[in-house]
Amino acid sequence: MLYLTRRETFNAAHKLHIAEWSDEKNLAVFGKCSNRNWHGHNYELFVTVAGQPDSVTGFVMDAKQLSNIMKKEIVDQVDHQNFNIDVEWVPKGMQPTTENLLILFWDRIEQHINSIGEAKLYSIRLRETENIYAEYFGPTGRK
Amino acid sequence: MLYLTRRETFNAAHKLHIAEWSDEKNLAVFGKCSNRNWHGHNYELFVTVAGQPDSVTGFVMDAKQLSNIMKKEIVDQVDHQNFNIDVEWVPKGMQPTTENLLILFWDRIEQHINSIGEAKLYSIRLRETENIYAEYFGPTGRK
Amino acid sequence: MLYLTRRETFNAAHKLHIAEWSDEKNLAVFGKCSNRNWHGHNYELFVTVAGQPDSVTGFVMDAKQLSNIMKKEIVDQVDHQNFNIDVEWVPKGMQPTTENLLILFWDRIEQHINSIGEAKLYSIRLRETENIYAEYFGPTGRK
Amino acid sequence: MLYLTRRETFNAAHKLHIAEWSDEKNLAVFGKCSNRNWHGHNYELFVTVAGQPDSVTGFVMDAKQLSNIMKKEIVDQVDHQNFNIDVEWVPKGMQPTTENLLILFWDRIEQHINSIGEAKLYSIRLRETENIYAEYFGPTGRK
Amino acid sequence: MLYLTRRETFNAAHKLHIAEWSDEKNLAVFGKCSNRNWHGHNYELFVTVAGQPDSVTGFVMDAKQLSNIMKKEIVDQVDHQNFNIDVEWVPKGMQPTTENLLILFWDRIEQHINSIGEAKLYSIRLRETENIYAEYFGPTGRK
Amino acid sequence: MLYLTRRETFNAAHKLHIAEWSDEKNLAVFGKCSNRNWHGHNYELFVTVAGQPDSVTGFVMDAKQLSNIMKKEIVDQVDHQNFNIDVEWVPKGMQPTTENLLILFWDRIEQHINSIGEAKLYSIRLRETENIYAEYFGPTGRK
Repeated sequence: MLYLTRRETFNAAHKLHIAEWSDEKNLAVFGKCSNRNWHGHNYELFVTVAGQPDSVTGFVMDAKQLSNIMKKEIVDQVDHQNFNIDVEWVPKGMQPTTENLLILFWDRIEQHINSIGEAKLYSIRLRETENIYAEYFGPTGRK
Repeated sequence: MLYLTRRETFNAAHKLHIAEWSDEKNLAVFGKCSNRNWHGHNYELFVTVAGQPDSVTGFVMDAKQLSNIMKKEIVDQVDHQNFNIDVEWVPKGMQPTTENLLILFWDRIEQHINSIGEAKLYSIRLRETENIYAEYFGPTGRK
Repeated sequence: MLYLTRRETFNAAHKLHIAEWSDEKNLAVFGKCSNRNWHGHNYELFVTVAGQPDSVTGFVMDAKQLSNIMKKEIVDQVDHQNFNIDVEWVPKGMQPTTENLLILFWDRIEQHINSIGEAKLYSIRLRETENIYAEYFGPTGRK
Repeated sequence: MLYLTRRETFNAAHKLHIAEWSDEKNLAVFGKCSNRNWHGHNYELFVTVAGQPDSVTGFVMDAKQLSNIMKKEIVDQVDHQNFNIDVEWVPKGMQPTTENLLILFWDRIEQHINSIGEAKLYSIRLRETENIYAEYFGPTGRK
Repeated sequence: MLYLTRRETFNAAHKLHIAEWSDEKNLAVFGKCSNRNWHGHNYELFVTVAGQPDSVTGFVMDAKQLSNIMKKEIVDQVDHQNFNIDVEWVPKGMQPTTENLLILFWDRIEQHINSIGEAKLYSIRLRETENIYAEYFGPTGRK
Repeated sequence: MLYLTRRETFNAAHKLHIAEWSDEKNLAVFGKCSNRNWHGHNYELFVTVAGQPDSVTGFVMDAKQLSNIMKKEIVDQVDHQNFNIDVEWVPKGMQPTTENLLILFWDRIEQHINSIGEAKLYSIRLRETENIYAEYFGPTGRK
């Protein structure tokens, strides 16, 4: 098994805020991220696929194909968007935390990646700031 | 002359959008940055001061003092905020571009920095993404 | 399972040096790191916790709480300190290598992190220079 | 178990190109990487070893020894070279993809690393650009 | 005056080698960069323009337009190419050093940039590796 | 004029501390940097030379020669050393601040660089942490 990782970047706005809660409670739970009027990030998205290198091409997967899936299914839909308002596949009421976004991203790209060939989606990592990132290995966990 | 630079970071939302224009015209002029519902960035702010190192301390300026001014006058007021809505010293109708922010930032910190001692504010650089930054040397230009 | 990682930074001095050995033997074993008069690093510390995102907040763990534990239990005690002299929980005679520091750091934060909620400490990574880092998954190993 | 990672860098040329194929087919499969006249990269190579820290030195492995093996067996042989022409241990006809290089690198350093002491080679990561890297855990897979 | 900088990246092969010289002399003058069979780099290109922010848009220059010029006139012509062979506007016999490339790049983009509006090309910086970069301010020098 | 910059790195210990002062006064002036028992940094050193590219080689200066001077005159003398104790050309009683080090570094390399050929030392930049760096253009200032 070899693991190939591709990075893409995007910028987006979000807030962590529960409408039914008071501003005070939102602030207590979500801190500065609860600001009603949004804030945003330069996100870095890393998708890792696992497989054997093809005996002819030497590719686990064509990194260009991987990039295209990442762009079509994720980046083009969230870049310069507001996760809470603009992205229809973020369920209303779900907080667009790094963690929740990873699970949504996984569901959007898994089939597209896994249907190309032998290589399979292994993990997604999302960096929100230089100090925070999260990683997800899918519903069956880290293998 | 020696030049001392201090970096601070913050996250914020903004949009580049002129209310009097149609969405089409906004899109034509500002591209994806015109999204009505905002987007955001992890900003990196670099402030450079110029002076002679003190003969006793060896400091052009105490970097902690410089950091404190940057935090009090800029970072604490814009971090996790929306430049178009939340920051009262961004004039209504002024687009919060990297360029315009630099001029506003300059005006907010120049006196605070220049009143400490001999060192003077020399430049401010603001990085919006890994691919775009701008730099300003004040109203009298690069010396 | 989702994995959330938080980065903190600190600067410290250390040396790798066994007092009972000659300078020559110290040099042979520890190289330049054996310099009697210390050297130092800008360390980067990454702590990863594993858990399920909370169904309401979307957090595996509040990154601010994680940061606070890292600061209180590690950063505030080692930043601008000398690992060989100043940090009382580094056992006398233990070399403050990246590897040994990781084990000490694990023991200092594991209970604090694991007592917050469902998420558990998963790994600690310590970067000593741009060319060297180490990672530890706890006494029971990588899961 | 602790994991120690060392980074080294090198620059090299390569192309992904199958001589028996037309330029059109090469372009269709390998994209811009198929350019007959080569292109190149600043590669970053990360080698990770796993072991217990020595009770006296606190080292999983002497990072200088690890660096020396990486330099002698890999970097000195590929730096400023052409992977398709100059490196005799790249089999003719094998595409020098990041994935294939990792397998070749593994075979070149595994015995040298594993014969030093208790620590064993755990993984090799090769970064080709800021957007693409691959990782290999050896023929028996990720442990 | 405000200074706006845009970064683009590309990968290319080159060698520093004078055909009339022996390999020994080439090696003595150009070191490892003289390898007959090429080597390559991940280049980072930074172009800085200087001007006043537009009173309506707040832009010194539309960064997207700047990016488009950089791509059309430079990146699309050199990415995954060999500077010595493939790029027709590199004069035969001119060594494709970072320094010489900067002068060629300047001549390719100056008119395109300066004809857009009031902002003018100020400098070009080209990073060849993490340890080497060069900067050029045009034939009339740093202003 | 073209400007060529070379980066080298080193690790060192230092403290900012005036022996005649009380610990309290040292702490008030130098903050955490005053710790009696030292702290340290991973320094990044950037040296920039200015000149015309040679018409044959295309070099403003051979970057290898520049690197050699940086290593011989600075890096080899300070790497894994203590600036306050080990480096004899740091005057006793001079605080080894980033600013003062720059002036000392300038004096050590200026003649070596300027005697090679037409290119002249233009600036030295020293990065102490990811948040602080200083730059020096020599006793006659920025040209």
